[in-house]
Amino acid sequence: MTEQAAQTTGQEYHVVRASALRDWVASVFVRLGVSEEDAGITAEVLVSADLRGVESHGVARLGPRYTSKIQQGLILPRVEPRVVRETPATALVDGGNGLGQPVGRWAMELAIRKARETGQGSVAVHNSNHFGIAGYYAMMALEHDMIGVCYTNSTPLVVPTYGRTAMTGTNPIAVAIPAGEERPWVLDMATSVVPLGKLEVYARKGQPIPIGWAVDSSGHPTESAQAVIESLRTRAGGGILPLGGTAEFGGYKGYDLSAMVDLYSGVLSGGRWGPHVGENVDGRAAPAGVCHFFSAMRVDGFRPAEEFKRDVDEYIRAFRNAPRAEGEDRIWVAGEKEWELQERYERDGVPLYYKVVESLRRVGRDVGPPFDL
Amino acid sequence: MTEQAAQTTGQEYHVVRASALRDWVASVFVRLGVSEEDAGITAEVLVSADLRGVESHGVARLGPRYTSKIQQGLILPRVEPRVVRETPATALVDGGNGLGQPVGRWAMELAIRKARETGQGSVAVHNSNHFGIAGYYAMMALEHDMIGVCYTNSTPLVVPTYGRTAMTGTNPIAVAIPAGEERPWVLDMATSVVPLGKLEVYARKGQPIPIGWAVDSSGHPTESAQAVIESLRTRAGGGILPLGGTAEFGGYKGYDLSAMVDLYSGVLSGGRWGPHVGENVDGRAAPAGVCHFFSAMRVDGFRPAEEFKRDVDEYIRAFRNAPRAEGEDRIWVAGEKEWELQERYERDGVPLYYKVVESLRRVGRDVGPPFDL
Repeated sequence: MTEQAAQTTGQEYHVVRASALRDWVASVFVRLGVSEEDAGITAEVLVSADLRGVESHGVARLGPRYTSKIQQGLILPRVEPRVVRETPATALVDGGNGLGQPVGRWAMELAIRKARETGQGSVAVHNSNHFGIAGYYAMMALEHDMIGVCYTNSTPLVVPTYGRTAMTGTNPIAVAIPAGEERPWVLDMATSVVPLGKLEVYARKGQPIPIGWAVDSSGHPTESAQAVIESLRTRAGGGILPLGGTAEFGGYKGYDLSAMVDLYSGVLSGGRWGPHVGENVDGRAAPAGVCHFFSAMRVDGFRPAEEFKRDVDEYIRAFRNAPRAEGEDRIWVAGEKEWELQERYERDGVPLYYKVVESLRRVGRDVGPPFDL
Repeated sequence: MTEQAAQTTGQEYHVVRASALRDWVASVFVRLGVSEEDAGITAEVLVSADLRGVESHGVARLGPRYTSKIQQGLILPRVEPRVVRETPATALVDGGNGLGQPVGRWAMELAIRKARETGQGSVAVHNSNHFGIAGYYAMMALEHDMIGVCYTNSTPLVVPTYGRTAMTGTNPIAVAIPAGEERPWVLDMATSVVPLGKLEVYARKGQPIPIGWAVDSSGHPTESAQAVIESLRTRAGGGILPLGGTAEFGGYKGYDLSAMVDLYSGVLSGGRWGPHVGENVDGRAAPAGVCHFFSAMRVDGFRPAEEFKRDVDEYIRAFRNAPRAEGEDRIWVAGEKEWELQERYERDGVPLYYKVVESLRRVGRDVGPPFDL
């Protein structure tokens, strides 16, 4: 624990420098046979999630989602992504069952290069793995005055409207739009009502979840987070509802958005999709087969970038300064919360929940070097 | 009334042939000075909404949204869309304040031509008007084995999370994906929980709306559809909530999606956006300044189109045949409901609600030729 820990919730959080955390995470991957470069990229993407307050996609997953999978041979530590098919504006890439982060970064760089040449570039990737936050890749377009888009499919957790088994993942949509003086407009959202992590918090506390978040194994809305988690674990059915929740509130729209992400990622790439994604095939451990989609588009294909960015500034300010509901003190703009956290955590350090620290210590003991930040 | 009317709900509906309806609507536009070609396109897009069961965007709007606006000089009957800026893959188009349908069709054709050359094409349009259903334009890509995308902004009706005034329209997202033997996968969704028309139905019946659909002029969730409609009309605040509803159910995601559509349409085109869209500027009638975004992408830039379409078939069937919730008899795939209605209405005729028939008769008396289908 450091003095800074007192800034957050008592002793529950341990605060570490982002740069030190990145270096340690990278060194873990290097020990597992990952190249220095790929280890650095993977560490950067993971820590960027913690910096942006998306703890569920950050270093908390280092052991369960990454190092243990490399150790089990389910993720290959050293691969070269390979272009399978290519046109001036598009490409299909085989991720070679490597870490999702270096493959993702490589594919988004390819999309950006293509956009520089033709105005727009899109790249679909199959045979990859979890790649952290989708927003990271979309944001890579920003410094080029491009709009960045990133989708990925993921392990099934979400039940389609009127269904009773999980058929898609929380399949995120990320869109990054450059601004001028304001921070960029960045959308990075799961297409489910809530992430699984939120159900886990309610289950731990034994609190009922709102009707509209999840369904039980019969497909009916439930208040029991524990029942949903248990039936997902045993593959008995049930799961999280898509954005919108029940049909009455437009849940079929979230279901369609989730399928759209899957069609662009899994089907357009000729990879795995829907219930076939994930490290479990017919009860046996297997590569996850995650698929991604990346796209970049030059703003100056439509109008001068400076004019566009000035108007995005105006757009952001119009919403921030719009009349607020009684009792509310702020209207947020997409990505604003995350930028504010990132600035604070880069300055003051990243707070790690004590359970996350414990899991990093286990990774340190298991793989080395020890976690002693 | 025809014999076929008995097929639907007693005498409330009048059934007409789609082709006869299209011809009559086109003839109305020709009387108002619209070219034969543009009149035909506008009629086709309007009737396609009725065929697909999206009555709110069909001929019911002919008088209030189109003919009266042309008569008031707010929409120009005869314009040529103009390319303002162009690269091989992108273009900015000035809609010239003409009818949205011919401009939209022209712009999507341009996007498709660009996609044929470069792999992807995108076109942003400013200075346009309501263009009917966004799905129509996205679906234009299908016969070219392309994925089509269409966004449009619209008159403010939707309140951002924690706000209390409408800042965006119901800003739809349309995505059309070609299939093989199955009907194409077509998403065409408003980014609001419900359309305004749904609130109007509840208001008429005096029924409470579910908490999470709309907020009153203080920004608090309300059960009174009448209060929302009234406060929208008098610009006192209030409005529909974005997809997701309240923040607890992820309403901020719908708000962000609605803003994304606006940024691609209004801001990327250098046109009007957010609260500035619509036929009312500082209390005076004015052109609506609606903006659109169109995009097409060749499937074979990633993999052979036939393989892709075969897998889309498999995708559609997997969801259609997935385990259903107890008591439910069907899981729908995006666009499926609309295709089934379209096939039925093309065969049996389009049912027009009696109030719609009355409004068409008024248009016939006012503009001619008489509505006597």
